Formats: sequence, structure tokens, C-alpha cells
Amino acid sequence: MKLKLLYTCMALTGLAASAFAQEPVDAAAVAKIREEGLNHSKVMDIAFNITDVSGPRLSNSPGLKRAQDWAVNQLKEWGLANAKLEAWGKFGKGWEVQKNYAAITVPYYHAIIAIPKAWTPGTNGAIKGEVVLVKADSIADLEKYKGNLAGKVVIFDTKPLTERSFKPDASRYTDEELDKMAQATAAPRGGNRNNAFDPNSPMMVARRKMIAMRAAMSTFFVEQKVGLILSQARGTDGTVFTTNGASYADTAKAVAPELETSSEDFQRILRLVKAGKKVEMEADVKTEFFTKDLQGYNVLAEIPGTDKKLKDQVIMIGGHFDSWHAGTGATDNAAGSAVMMEAMRILKAIGFKPKRTIRIGLWSSEEQGLYGSRGYVANHLGDPKTMELKPEHAKLDAYYNLDNGTGKIRGVYLQGDSLAGPIFKAWLEPFKDLGATTITVGNTGGTDHLSYDALGLPGFQFIQDGIDYNTRTHHSNQDTYERLIEDDLKQAATIVASFVYHTSERKDMIPRKELPKAAPAR
Amino acid sequence: MKLKLLYTCMALTGLAASAFAQEPVDAAAVAKIREEGLNHSKVMDIAFNITDVSGPRLSNSPGLKRAQDWAVNQLKEWGLANAKLEAWGKFGKGWEVQKNYAAITVPYYHAIIAIPKAWTPGTNGAIKGEVVLVKADSIADLEKYKGNLAGKVVIFDTKPLTERSFKPDASRYTDEELDKMAQATAAPRGGNRNNAFDPNSPMMVARRKMIAMRAAMSTFFVEQKVGLILSQARGTDGTVFTTNGASYADTAKAVAPELETSSEDFQRILRLVKAGKKVEMEADVKTEFFTKDLQGYNVLAEIPGTDKKLKDQVIMIGGHFDSWHAGTGATDNAAGSAVMMEAMRILKAIGFKPKRTIRIGLWSSEEQGLYGSRGYVANHLGDPKTMELKPEHAKLDAYYNLDNGTGKIRGVYLQGDSLAGPIFKAWLEPFKDLGATTITVGNTGGTDHLSYDALGLPGFQFIQDGIDYNTRTHHSNQDTYERLIEDDLKQAATIVASFVYHTSERKDMIPRKELPKAAPAR
Repeated sequence: MKLKLLYTCMALTGLAASAFAQEPVDAAAVAKIREEGLNHSKVMDIAFNITDVSGPRLSNSPGLKRAQDWAVNQLKEWGLANAKLEAWGKFGKGWEVQKNYAAITVPYYHAIIAIPKAWTPGTNGAIKGEVVLVKADSIADLEKYKGNLAGKVVIFDTKPLTERSFKPDASRYTDEELDKMAQATAAPRGGNRNNAFDPNSPMMVARRKMIAMRAAMSTFFVEQKVGLILSQARGTDGTVFTTNGASYADTAKAVAPELETSSEDFQRILRLVKAGKKVEMEADVKTEFFTKDLQGYNVLAEIPGTDKKLKDQVIMIGGHFDSWHAGTGATDNAAGSAVMMEAMRILKAIGFKPKRTIRIGLWSSEEQGLYGSRGYVANHLGDPKTMELKPEHAKLDAYYNLDNGTGKIRGVYLQGDSLAGPIFKAWLEPFKDLGATTITVGNTGGTDHLSYDALGLPGFQFIQDGIDYNTRTHHSNQDTYERLIEDDLKQAATIVASFVYHTSERKDMIPRKELPKAAPAR
Repeated sequence: MKLKLLYTCMALTGLAASAFAQEPVDAAAVAKIREEGLNHSKVMDIAFNITDVSGPRLSNSPGLKRAQDWAVNQLKEWGLANAKLEAWGKFGKGWEVQKNYAAITVPYYHAIIAIPKAWTPGTNGAIKGEVVLVKADSIADLEKYKGNLAGKVVIFDTKPLTERSFKPDASRYTDEELDKMAQATAAPRGGNRNNAFDPNSPMMVARRKMIAMRAAMSTFFVEQKVGLILSQARGTDGTVFTTNGASYADTAKAVAPELETSSEDFQRILRLVKAGKKVEMEADVKTEFFTKDLQGYNVLAEIPGTDKKLKDQVIMIGGHFDSWHAGTGATDNAAGSAVMMEAMRILKAIGFKPKRTIRIGLWSSEEQGLYGSRGYVANHLGDPKTMELKPEHAKLDAYYNLDNGTGKIRGVYLQGDSLAGPIFKAWLEPFKDLGATTITVGNTGGTDHLSYDALGLPGFQFIQDGIDYNTRTHHSNQDTYERLIEDDLKQAATIVASFVYHTSERKDMIPRKELPKAAPAR
């Protein structure tokens, strides 16, 4: 009964949309996709396997490999073709945490909340040491610590974080915010990472100085045999945002062990030391590096096209599969990965035989610089620097990406491809009741659609409600399964499946922007 | 210049207040108190010593003893008389954490955020064990686990916590909320802990059954040599609210080691186990009991009265000094303790020679049942059960308490003592600009003013802005120094000092409610 009403509703909506945008919408297909995506979803089960079961998925870590192997098998099991891991190029070392313990022991016992920085070494067994506050504005300032830091715990004078608890962690886009996005007329400058800075600008000079200072300190601390470095993490209330503390390159220089420490624990230690109180700590941190295979891999699988003329044309969907190491990368980006896998599952489940080929790419090493998707693009589509294009470039219809957390889809960023606007507007019509309405010509940066956009290919990221992505989960130890909102992920997978369906069945490929120019040789 | 303007302002305010409420306000004294309290405050330094320097202050723990010794010395240093620790009666064992480490090791490594329940034993060295989900609705259900739990980690099927991050953690009272409080006409039933429940009510029968089940499980787990119990803590995002897991009585039965586990870590383990995945853990928890001195102690100190006729009359101020063990009890209740100490310091600093005696009491064992203040009251003032009163009862003018976190004072709960209303209304007048305006005849419960109220003595708790007390800090591992809002604590100390000043100089003592009746003998 519910299904039939829904179907009628969809049919009407479909007609209305077609009339408005002159772009056909297949209401029957939408109804089937909605029924499968909203009422028979597997998206939470997929997310459970990517997060809880696989664990953290840092690039080239065992956790990422577990998740990739699971995904390939799962995609095969659903009947997708050519499910495989594909090397995209050299990444570097894998790394994982195998023991993580640190506590204050003087003036009293207190176990701290702290996470090893990615690609840092461990303490080589249990250590005990006094905390030393190192104050150094220049390399010369380090001299006075020479010979005094062996086995010690080093901290730096760091400002307390500003309290923000009078505002909610989580929010959704308001109608006003969405209207404003819809009214944008030009694509603002996006997150394209090929933009060059003037190397002689004061900012770049200061930056080089800071990098040199950091490198000198890092070398000094290794020489001085520092036991452990504590740095203050972003985050409050037990939430610790993480980064890397060393390079993943197989040729990277040695660094000292370093823990990103919850702001509360860090500031307590700092206040005590600054007040002249002796603070001693104990710690036992073990990390392991994996150097056997330095290649990075993407997960790929497809539903082959069935139309003789169109099957060589390819629609791609994807999101990055790698994560940071302190949580299980639930919102960043198990969410997007699970939605994209679920979209493929939905299309298989409704028995869809697409005209064009539909391919999923679950990228690795996004967190270090979109490397997985850039590698795929370089190997298959062309070089964005020289704009030398490969034959597949002409056949790539569109790429849809999802990587902004657990929030439902509210619309699409056109990334400046205004010709796609009326098409997507029509395709969103049947999802008004689910809150997806907004088309903006604007850009969004920071993730894998940029790899396609850099080659002038239609690469899109959806607009998603932010929820607590920026305040609580993005790269933090709290990016775990419970942050996922089931209804939002179901909605997203349903909409993506419908977009892919319509892209595949469309008479023409998605219109493209002008090809970018090759970067000038330096 | 600022001072003079302030003084003039105060003088005007003082006159206005007197005219309104017929209750004298000493504007010159208020100006001096404001100057000292708002511009020369030591409240954050006091709070630093109670929290960071002393550590957690669980009843009879070494941390509480450190803080008590520091407080006695500090109060002496400020020139207070009779600063001392005074035993209030037998409490029980002290306890502290000396090592706290636990991690998942299978299916992958992840160190969890978890806190030993108070008064539970440790693991007796490092342990490793598989996680077992125990499902038992009755004592008979435990049979099937017999012989299978030795060295294992036991968890229970526990519902995930509801996400609440769309609301802010912290808030202040709105004008509407304060108006509503001010309009209350009768004191609602407060938190008086002498209220008896019908022992045959369904609630009490169910409660007895639950207690029996818990006791049987506890015994069973000890007999079965369970390695560790994990229970889900209240709290999200790395915040862990704590409780006790065993009695502090010297005769308490043995229990198994138990960690209150962050909801995210607990639910991850639970989801994996329920999905049939093997989960193994390692842990090393060490706790120590202190049984040499089972007495509980309060900190006392005073500014002796100087008026021949009035100096035997006593105004008391206080708050509890003990805390839970996972944080440093900053908002519960270093905040109130620091404010009360600072109020005493302000009065000494302005050279005040009070007519009546002013005494501070920093109570212990409030968290286990207001024991410190109840013990003081029983030893000095009378027995609330029999209403047998001691001579000091007639001389106790008023008791002011602070124990609702870091939020500034917004007014006073009259606790049904409506005769005190116009007096306090007048005394609040000079603090309108600091947000303190509201008098409510209503009650508030749950803390040490109840010990006085139970004997019919004027015992008051101030209305305070809640901030994030109920959502984030109250009894949690995040109840640390950074939760303290300096301006709020300064405001509170200033207002308390002024209240104490005016109580001391008042012609008459604060009017009392009718004496309560003795409880009927059972």
C-alpha cells in the first residue's frame, strides 16, 4: 500500500520535473530505486564492515587492506564485474599503532587521552621521564637544552583552546543558507591544489622559516634521545583530532615519538610545569611500519554497459576509502564509501542493465593529497599538468563523489559546469521530499572530484548537511560508527543511484566545461 | 577613576535598595568587596591548587588529603583562626587509581577510553582475554556461564546512548526562566533524603530484585575469576561519567575489576561481539585502598566575631571539597570550594572585623550522601531524626552553600524560608549589573545546605547558571580546570562575601522557618 502511493507520487513528480527542466526523469525507475534504497537498505551493514570490522584505514595500513579486501569480495558477491584492487603508483610506508599508553605519575596518577601522530615511532618499550617545557623561537635557542633531554617528555608552550560549548556541535543547512548557495553566480576559486604561490611572498618566506625550524627541532630531539613529545591536539571533551607527525616516504628521516594529546590533559600538564611543579610521566607506545609493498591501491568494480554504442562510455562514482588512524573514519569517509557501494548494490538489486558502464572507485591516500584518485586519473585519463589526454578521457561521462560526512544530500556543486545545472535540477525533483533541492554553480574543494575537474571532466561533489563533521568527527578519535545517521545515508545512496541511473540512460553525456590549459613550464 | 565611579554607583544603588526593601545595604562595604573580588581575585589560583595540583579528591583518598592540607595551610596563611581538619565520623576506605590501561587487540589494536569504577580492585597485573557478552535476566541464567569466564572480559547488552549534539552543551538561564523561578509561590518538595518510600510499592519491590540480582552477579563474577568487567559509561565524544562500583565500607565484599567505558568504545566492542566477531583485549589496572584511617574529615576555619553580644553567633559558608575520581572535580565542586575560600579571603583582605563569627566548612563525602556536612551538623547542632538540638543550634545564624558548577550566581533559593526573601532581595540589589537578581521561595536539593535545612536552620544554596554541568562535567573525566569560567567565579565570590558581610552586621539573625517535627519512630 505504502509502495503504491509512493509510486503514484513519484510519477506525478517526475512529470512535473520534466515539464520544468526539459530533462526526462524516469519516474518508474526512481520509485524502484527509492523502494530499494529507503526500505531495503544495507548501507549500515556496509558501514559497519568498513569501520568497526576493518578498524582505522590509514593509507597502506593493514586496516585499509582489510577493508579493501572486504570491499572487493562484497562487490563481487553483489555480482559486479571486474572487482579488483588496482595499483595507482608508489605511496610509501604503511603504519599502525600496536600499543598506546601514557600517564602522569607525579604529582599523582592520571592516564591521559592521547594518540600517536601518524608515521611516528614508538617509545621502544615502557619509559618513565620528567616533563620538560621547551621554549625555542630559533634554532639557537635549542642549545640550552643540549644534554638535558635524554629520556624526557618534551612539551611546548601552547595556548589553551577556546571553549565553544555554548554552540551545538551539529547542524544542518537552513533554507536561507541553501538559497544563498543556489544564488551564487560564479564558481569561486576552489580547492584546486595546482595553484601556485609566489615563492618570495612574506607568507611563503615565513612558511619556509617555520618548516626549517621544525626540521631542525625534529633532528635535535632525535639526537638528544628525547623519550616522548606531547603536542596539544585540536578538540575538547576527550575528542582528539589527529595528523601525521612524520613523512610516509620510505626515505623519511627518523623523528622522536610524539603523542597528540587531548587539550585538557595537555593544558593540565602545561599549567603544572609552568607553575614550577614537577611532573613525571610513564608511557609505552608501539607502532609498526610496513615497507614490503609501497604501492597504493584503489578498489574498482563495475556494472558493464549493455548498449552497443554507449557501453564504452563510463560513469564513475566514488569516494575515498582511506581514513586517519585514531577513529575508524566513519564520517571521513566510510560514510561516502558506504553510500557509493550501496548505490551500486541498489542498481544491481533492481536489475538495472545500464546503457553505459557504471564504475565505482574507492580511493586510497586521499588524506595525503588525493593520491589514489589522481593516480587513477593519470593512469587512465590524462595528465592535468601537460593536458596530454588518453583515449578514455573522451569516454568518461561524469564522476560523482561523496566525502563530506554523514549528512544527507541537499544538492550538487556544479563546480562551474553550469550546463549541467538544469539536468541535475530535474533529477533532484523527485527527492524534494527528502530535502535535496539545491543546485549551486559554486565549487567545493578538498576531495577527489578535483582530480577529474583538473582534466576538464565533469566531476561533482554533492552538497551535504554538515552535522558535526567540522566540530567533532573530521580526522578525530571520535569519528566512529555512532556518528553515522542511518536515514541520511539511505537518502544519499538513493539519490546517487538515481543520478547514476539517469546519467547512464541519458541520450548524451553530461556537458563539459572548456578544457583547462596546460600549466606553464617552470 | 574606575574605582571612584564604581563607588558612587554603589552608593546610589545601595540607597535605592534600602528604600525598596527596608533592609539596609552597606554601599561602602559592597564597593570594597567588589573591588577586591572583581579586580584582585585569587579564585583561579585557589581553584588551580584544588584541581590540577591536588588531583582527584575522592573521599578519603590521598588526593583529598593533599587538597585538605593545602586548604588548611592557605586559610591559616590568610590569617583565619582555628583552621583545622575536624573528624566528622567514620567514612570508610580511601581508594585511588595507580594504573589504568585497556585496549582491544583483536580484530585490531585500539586503546579504549575507560575509567575504573571507584572502590573496585585492579587486574593484579597485565591481563589478556576474550570478550564475552553475558546475557542474564535472572540468577539462574548465570549457570550457563559457569566455568567459562575465568580471565575473560565481561560485557552486557546495553543500549547505545542517544545522540544530543544538535543542542549546545552549555547554557545560561534566560530571563523567562528566572522570572518563572521568581514567581514560584510554594517550596516544591526538595531533595530531603529523609523522605521514606513505601517498602511494598512495585517500584521498591523491583528495586530490591535488581539489587539482589546485581549482588548475585557480583559474587558470581568474583567466584568465576572474571578478568575484567566493562560497563558503558554515560557520556559521548570521549567524555566518561563515573560512579562507584563497590562499597567504601571496610567490611565491603570483594568485587571484580570494572571499567566504566566510553560509550563509543563500549558500543564498538558490543557491535563486534553481537555480530559474532572475536574480540580480545589486554588491560592493566592497579588501584590501591587506604584503610589506616577510616575517619572522614572536614576543613574548618573562621574569622572570629568582635561584637561582645553577637560573636557567639555563627554564619557558616561552605561547599563540598570531595569529588569523583576521573577528572579533578573542577565544577563539582572545586568551583564552589574556591568561591567560598575566596569569599573568606576577600573579607580578610578588606580588613573586615565582623560582629558575628564567620566560619567556612569544606565538607568531605558529599558525593556518597552529604556525610561531611551531616556529620558536622550531628556533632555540633543536633539530630534531625529526633530533633534533639544542641546549644550551638540557637547560635547558628545562616548557612550559605555553593555546589552547582562554575556558573555565576543568578539569585538564591529560599528553601521555603519566605521571611528571608525581602532581606536577600535587598542584598542582591547592588549586583543587578552582574546578573544576580532572582529570589525564589523554591527548593533545590542534592547538596549540603540540606543538612542544615533538615534541622530547621536557614540553609541556602545559590541559583547558578548551569553552563555544561549536567551535560558534560558533573562526575565526568572532563570535570577539569578549563571548565571553570573566571568571571563567573569572581562574581560568585564577590556576592557571597557581601551576603556574609551583611548577615554578620545585621541587627537580627536571619529569620527561621518553623522547626521540623521529629521523624516517627519505626
